[in-house]
Amino acid sequence: MEDFVIKYRKELLENVIPFWEKYSIDKEYGGYLTCLDRDGSVFDTDKFMWLQGRQIWTMSMLYDKVEAKEHWKEIAEHGARFILQHGRDEKGDWYFALDRAGNPLVQPYNIFSDCFASMGLAALYKITNNDEYAQVAYDTFKRIIQRRNNPKGKYNKAYPNTRALKGFSLPMILSNLSLELEHIVGTDTVESLIDEIIHEVMEVFYQPESGLIVESVNADGTFSDTFEGRLVNPGHVIEAMWFMMDLAARRKDAKLMDKCIQIALRALEYGWDEEFGGIFYFKDILNRPPQQLEWDQKLWWVHLEALVCMAKGYAYTGDERCKAWFEKLDNYAFNRFSDPQYGEWFGYLNRQGQPLLTLKGGKWKGCFHVPRALFKIYESLETTVLQGI
Amino acid sequence: MEDFVIKYRKELLENVIPFWEKYSIDKEYGGYLTCLDRDGSVFDTDKFMWLQGRQIWTMSMLYDKVEAKEHWKEIAEHGARFILQHGRDEKGDWYFALDRAGNPLVQPYNIFSDCFASMGLAALYKITNNDEYAQVAYDTFKRIIQRRNNPKGKYNKAYPNTRALKGFSLPMILSNLSLELEHIVGTDTVESLIDEIIHEVMEVFYQPESGLIVESVNADGTFSDTFEGRLVNPGHVIEAMWFMMDLAARRKDAKLMDKCIQIALRALEYGWDEEFGGIFYFKDILNRPPQQLEWDQKLWWVHLEALVCMAKGYAYTGDERCKAWFEKLDNYAFNRFSDPQYGEWFGYLNRQGQPLLTLKGGKWKGCFHVPRALFKIYESLETTVLQGI
Repeated sequence: MEDFVIKYRKELLENVIPFWEKYSIDKEYGGYLTCLDRDGSVFDTDKFMWLQGRQIWTMSMLYDKVEAKEHWKEIAEHGARFILQHGRDEKGDWYFALDRAGNPLVQPYNIFSDCFASMGLAALYKITNNDEYAQVAYDTFKRIIQRRNNPKGKYNKAYPNTRALKGFSLPMILSNLSLELEHIVGTDTVESLIDEIIHEVMEVFYQPESGLIVESVNADGTFSDTFEGRLVNPGHVIEAMWFMMDLAARRKDAKLMDKCIQIALRALEYGWDEEFGGIFYFKDILNRPPQQLEWDQKLWWVHLEALVCMAKGYAYTGDERCKAWFEKLDNYAFNRFSDPQYGEWFGYLNRQGQPLLTLKGGKWKGCFHVPRALFKIYESLETTVLQGI
Repeated sequence: MEDFVIKYRKELLENVIPFWEKYSIDKEYGGYLTCLDRDGSVFDTDKFMWLQGRQIWTMSMLYDKVEAKEHWKEIAEHGARFILQHGRDEKGDWYFALDRAGNPLVQPYNIFSDCFASMGLAALYKITNNDEYAQVAYDTFKRIIQRRNNPKGKYNKAYPNTRALKGFSLPMILSNLSLELEHIVGTDTVESLIDEIIHEVMEVFYQPESGLIVESVNADGTFSDTFEGRLVNPGHVIEAMWFMMDLAARRKDAKLMDKCIQIALRALEYGWDEEFGGIFYFKDILNRPPQQLEWDQKLWWVHLEALVCMAKGYAYTGDERCKAWFEKLDNYAFNRFSDPQYGEWFGYLNRQGQPLLTLKGGKWKGCFHVPRALFKIYESLETTVLQGI
């Protein structure tokens, strides 16, 4: 696996990070510009809070884990200044989007803005010891926990109680977030959240008949034969499995680790497009027509999360099936998504594997999935090299 | 054009209407089932108010304009009973979705539910003279006018005043709705709305430099260089142009008619996919990456509205360019969308022109665009035959 370590590390440091260093810093108004076309040119100046928080996290993580470069810390602090000044409403909830100057555009209807702001500031605290970052990360985390049963608040369009579904996204993100905030919220909080979340993901959302995980279930945990209840997002399942593998490793729980690998392999087989290659974005678990018109597209983050998952699966267990899938995914994804000409990865391919959009960043894609995955891939594979697997 | 008259009339009466008669009537709970797979099998039972109202309209229109078949009137009344019993909240606003039994699922955040309920009931009143239908259609129309400046109400996620955009959809639908309700709201109301709407569509949303119409503009009518402001939906522009042609004909306004034809032809050229044929779903007017991942797909209604527009353009003016485009569109669309094996039309093709989903009806596709368009096409072309164009 040594060649892969070199390849993915080089991709991170030479092809991906320079792109964001060069094009995303808004020197005029602060924060980051994330709507970047293929060559890095700015095609829109709106600022989406998910991506502001995520870039703070990425730059802090690089400083912490890759190399203590002052420039990376400065970029993270540059983003933090902007979001702390403009990002919250009077209750401390985070807006979804701001305009370039920082004026609010879209209300705090989406709690993932809060999750990524908290995650970014917590990572920045780790490398700066600036208490303000820890305080806002902590306050935001508390609000997320308060709001978790109705995260959309008054913007929730579901009529109460006719069909009470619960979604897979929030427990997923909370498991990751609590770990990211362990140095701030303490290990007891993390451990009790982890207990709950492992149960939710691996038992409640998991469907034993199909071996898959659905995006939503009834409040009592039963299967819901509705558009939402039938929806499977294979990339999301696979991403969840490497979160769970990390928890299994933390707890030295071999049974949990084994179940994670089974589910991840099952989701890969299920999501793989036998005709054109790549992993579908959405499927209906009963094979009915999904609502999502983009269901057959191949998304960057899906393939990167799958690479991370297989790298981790192999590093934790030495399972050869994980290695084989890693190679297959690498073979499909690297040449299609990575853009050696201008840097970074394309985000959206059509079913046939050609770029559907030219953008490198937009409303949902920023400086996050590509660098996080590249780092985690080579970090995991390095351990296999060291262990001589 | 006589062959087209026969072809489109036959398609309506033998391939499309029988599909809905056979599969969409929910005899158990009332209303219509619209989530129908290729062969008519029900794949989901949720009831979307847009589509309930629209099917009432279609069945009433067929009775009124094609043939006074009792069965069509019965189907319309079957739908009306269901929506009158279950469709509204205590303020009289229409829910977006109900479950099969009629329990509310999604709150009245979307005013198009109200538009289509009103339109359906007004058409049903025309063929039944039942005053209840007229009263509810009228009350709903009044609420739409009241709500038009903030149709989403408390579900509006836009932060007030940072970026006040206005959308093209509501004036469009109001122009059509007021005409549909003329026998209920009176000609004065219709005429004053028409004045305003012709101005909005043909001057405010119209962009003289490009010759196109954008989906949103600033409140003062200027161009907004934002995702929303740059968005062009060619099918929507073309549909709007046949609405406007009808108004031009009503007012015997040759200048307006001419402008409608220019814009429609421009939108067709602009939206046409030179590589694979068909009309793109979305484009960015400055040629930047759009947010809509489905931008390159070929949708049934887009092609049908374009056929209607070209049939009307030719019928009203004899313009040979309209005839040529009609033939080109017919050649692309008919064989790809129409399904002679099971009836009705596929809704969604990928860029290459193959079915992306197998469904014939779903959350957004019901018994409406296909029959309305088929009827309007042969009705328009019949006049060209009669006039000997």
